[in-house]
Amino acid sequence: MNAIADPIARQLEDAARAARAAAGQLARAGRPAKDRALKAAAAALRAGQDTLLAANAADLEANPDLSPAFRDRLVLNPARIAAMAQGLEDVAALPDPVGHVLAEWTRPNGLVMRRVAQPLGVIGMIYESRPNVTADAAALCLKAGSAVLLRGGSEGARSSDAIHACIAAGLREAGLPEAAVQMAPSQDRAFVGAMLRASGLIDLIIPRGGKGLVKRVLEEARVPVLAHAEGLNHTYIHAAANPTMAREILADAKMRRTGVCGATETLLIDAAIAPELLPLLVADLAALGCGFKGDERARSILPALPVATEADFGTEWLDALLNIKVVDGLDSALAHIRRFGSEHTDAIVTEDAAVATSFLNALDSAVGMWNASTQFCDGGEFGFGAEIGIATGRLHARGPVGLEQLCTYRYHVIGTGQVRA
Amino acid sequence: MNAIADPIARQLEDAARAARAAAGQLARAGRPAKDRALKAAAAALRAGQDTLLAANAADLEANPDLSPAFRDRLVLNPARIAAMAQGLEDVAALPDPVGHVLAEWTRPNGLVMRRVAQPLGVIGMIYESRPNVTADAAALCLKAGSAVLLRGGSEGARSSDAIHACIAAGLREAGLPEAAVQMAPSQDRAFVGAMLRASGLIDLIIPRGGKGLVKRVLEEARVPVLAHAEGLNHTYIHAAANPTMAREILADAKMRRTGVCGATETLLIDAAIAPELLPLLVADLAALGCGFKGDERARSILPALPVATEADFGTEWLDALLNIKVVDGLDSALAHIRRFGSEHTDAIVTEDAAVATSFLNALDSAVGMWNASTQFCDGGEFGFGAEIGIATGRLHARGPVGLEQLCTYRYHVIGTGQVRA
Repeated sequence: MNAIADPIARQLEDAARAARAAAGQLARAGRPAKDRALKAAAAALRAGQDTLLAANAADLEANPDLSPAFRDRLVLNPARIAAMAQGLEDVAALPDPVGHVLAEWTRPNGLVMRRVAQPLGVIGMIYESRPNVTADAAALCLKAGSAVLLRGGSEGARSSDAIHACIAAGLREAGLPEAAVQMAPSQDRAFVGAMLRASGLIDLIIPRGGKGLVKRVLEEARVPVLAHAEGLNHTYIHAAANPTMAREILADAKMRRTGVCGATETLLIDAAIAPELLPLLVADLAALGCGFKGDERARSILPALPVATEADFGTEWLDALLNIKVVDGLDSALAHIRRFGSEHTDAIVTEDAAVATSFLNALDSAVGMWNASTQFCDGGEFGFGAEIGIATGRLHARGPVGLEQLCTYRYHVIGTGQVRA
Repeated sequence: MNAIADPIARQLEDAARAARAAAGQLARAGRPAKDRALKAAAAALRAGQDTLLAANAADLEANPDLSPAFRDRLVLNPARIAAMAQGLEDVAALPDPVGHVLAEWTRPNGLVMRRVAQPLGVIGMIYESRPNVTADAAALCLKAGSAVLLRGGSEGARSSDAIHACIAAGLREAGLPEAAVQMAPSQDRAFVGAMLRASGLIDLIIPRGGKGLVKRVLEEARVPVLAHAEGLNHTYIHAAANPTMAREILADAKMRRTGVCGATETLLIDAAIAPELLPLLVADLAALGCGFKGDERARSILPALPVATEADFGTEWLDALLNIKVVDGLDSALAHIRRFGSEHTDAIVTEDAAVATSFLNALDSAVGMWNASTQFCDGGEFGFGAEIGIATGRLHARGPVGLEQLCTYRYHVIGTGQVRA
């Protein structure tokens, strides 16, 4: 380890060890203390509005060259502060996941086996410019009984510190250790690297931000990661689709919000219905401001469509732009999704239950949908109350990551003196 | 990448890509085909007994300098071959975990959310000298719908290849792809390194063998790992323990089998009962051939006990040797377990339900037991039918890893045309 990295590694180790000790206290804290901390933090955010706005103004002033989109993500206003405070209270109102009995059974020898939800321990959160992630992540980790080490983008450091001060006030008021929610002690980029290598110190890393950040985290991390690099999602309109439903679903899946990871990027449509239905779908979306790229068969129906290349089918636009491909039934649609998809969310529209079942069973994606908009891939829509992100890996949790997914489990085995011999 | 590693990385990539394709077929294969393959493989093992014994004899002849313990792990005989075949049939008789609906709920908008068990994909198994791991791991991965790449120790390569040929015959007979169960194409040590770095090609690594192997895997792996490095387990005899039960449990927990990861390594006993009970416990275990190391307070009761150092309390003996420490109640016992334990399996013996509950809730271990022997930490004893190992990490699965834990999940979201906007 070189001379520059060394003090950073030490800073990380100190923070992580304090977090580990705090996690032990949090794990044993009951729901009332955790909820009290969340509500007190919400009150502190509301009471501290002027301080938060001043810190945010200082961030904006110190970073005058931000793009308008970046600036919009960074800016705080009274409505956003109120929403953060409400978010903390919403998490307080959710059931406590810790101690929940996930399964219980009795063995022939009388041993009672219980699988019980348990906090993960220490979570590392690496994010970019949205200050509200500081409050959201702190709330979810705290409620899930884990300590969290927050490393936000340097552009929003003053805003995040001000938000963090409100969380710390909440923890103090509830008698919980302040080390349960810590801001990273360093804005050095090397600190992120140290977090990613902190096997044994940090139990889980959750990145939240653009594709570049998430890919770096996935590539470099030696600590388990819950994340999705992209949502290259497909809506497949099968020959037996209800055309009206197909039009409503596609319009929502593509255009409700184009920048979310659950947005559809590619339309797959069966050749049997494309000549009739595709022009209607394209007209619907065009009226909503959407652009298109089509394969040769789509362009034989609508010659004005720009050409979709292979690279286009592999691109997550996150914009008002739709790839279109005409396919020859289920297998052809699945083959395309397997080749170009990102195992996030893919939907089929059909009235044929057998085809829908085959589609859902054959997909590797975290979420498969039948006759619904891909934009339902969201923790709130799943009923989780809140989510910290969407995971597309294979281990631990897939799809929306809520309080339940932020926990691990352990077994309680309850006997009356049983021995094996 | 250097000139030596490159061809190995290519071999791995070819094997893993073939495994991925086979995994797709396996994931869609129904239970009958998988069970048919397992039963046919069992029949092939029985029919191939002479071939297996000859291959094993060649392994033993080629490695004349093995320790007796190593040789015992490597050797095959008709009973062991019959047990392997029976193991395959036992796995065939287990329920199919794939497609099992883990949870289902309906949202207010009518969307039906289903969490469904799904195969992990491609599993890498890295093990040492026991040839039966080849059969056991192949059977569990196959039944769980995942392809597996098996890399066993070079000393048992001929035996493992002969066993693998029987599995391959079973796959062929069931019409399943042979690439679903592959032996590593290289015995080069660098191949293990390539497996550990095969992020995106291999979804999960399971090491099975000594502490050295597991630690190497945990340290080097860029792929998720399910494993335990050691089972430094404690049995805590609380002041309110039933003395007879305590004696029976401790004798089993320490001495039923001393070399298994669920064996107790350290006895913690409350000071209030130690003067009366400790001499009885030590006499019981001494009669079974156990040796001891005691802390100062234990030695004040039994001066003949050898001294237990801090290093002793941190050592997994896997032998007929017990560390003994006298503690001052629950908090003192928990502090010791947190400091020296390995988060595997820890037990309390007490008649006081409140103390037992506090103990179970405060432990970070994968398995906490109350009034039962730590040697129950075993997939069979948990009712899983078979296990591929024990996991002590925080993510995905903890405790015994059976068919259910070898699966991941995805969501099926079933709508009737719902849109979000």
